Amino acid sequence: MRFLSFHVEYFHYRVTKKGRSKVIEEISEDNRENSVENALVLFISMEKRDETSPDVLKRGLIEIEKIIRQLKLRNIVIVPFAHLFGQLSTLDFAFESFKNLESILISKDYSVLRLPFGWFNELEMKAKGHPLSRISRIIE
Amino acid sequence: MRFLSFHVEYFHYRVTKKGRSKVIEEISEDNRENSVENALVLFISMEKRDETSPDVLKRGLIEIEKIIRQLKLRNIVIVPFAHLFGQLSTLDFAFESFKNLESILISKDYSVLRLPFGWFNELEMKAKGHPLSRISRIIE
Repeated sequence: MRFLSFHVEYFHYRVTKKGRSKVIEEISEDNRENSVENALVLFISMEKRDETSPDVLKRGLIEIEKIIRQLKLRNIVIVPFAHLFGQLSTLDFAFESFKNLESILISKDYSVLRLPFGWFNELEMKAKGHPLSRISRIIE
Repeated sequence: MRFLSFHVEYFHYRVTKKGRSKVIEEISEDNRENSVENALVLFISMEKRDETSPDVLKRGLIEIEKIIRQLKLRNIVIVPFAHLFGQLSTLDFAFESFKNLESILISKDYSVLRLPFGWFNELEMKAKGHPLSRISRIIE
């Protein structure tokens, strides 16, 4: 698991079309487009080695919560993102992981926007310019 | 050298404050803030191994030009970016490399926006939602 985070003033996405992979999440009008302000945007990949590491989400969550506590945020955006230079897990594993991460964060009273898995989308955002506004982490 | 690229409808940056490193580019009113439309935004890291690889920029340029030709773009944004999970080069090497890359691209008649080295900045952008809108490459 690895992620690149941006602290943003706002974030907006709009689904454009289905990706070319076999795992495409069903979407409704509700999650075709959405926006949030003052959020931590997490571009996340799940990796091959994570498939045999049962506590990877728990450890990833510790790193994520460190950042959101420091920045005093309640809004989190999960962007499934394949372009972080890692060796990717299966699509099914990644999709399940992102849904689990969303559930755990919601159970901790964070407000979570999870982008639909397997779709192309437009992204619009304004990243803040302070020292913690971009962070990258690998959960080994 | 590695980069993560976004094809954007627009990109805007505004320098906020000096970073904490020893290499801080001098800036003027001209490059404190700027915008561009319909561009390829390159978040780039230079890596330790690049220091002993004299043709790394040339090889990186080949990959960059493949993308800008496919997308039929003339506008390029160079964002020095340390958060791409690589082992970073020295700051001096990175700064010189980004200036060289800018010069080469300008000599090829591209319009280039290079963000000042060593500064924090706000970034605002709208990434398109087509299959080539995000690409990552490692130049080994």
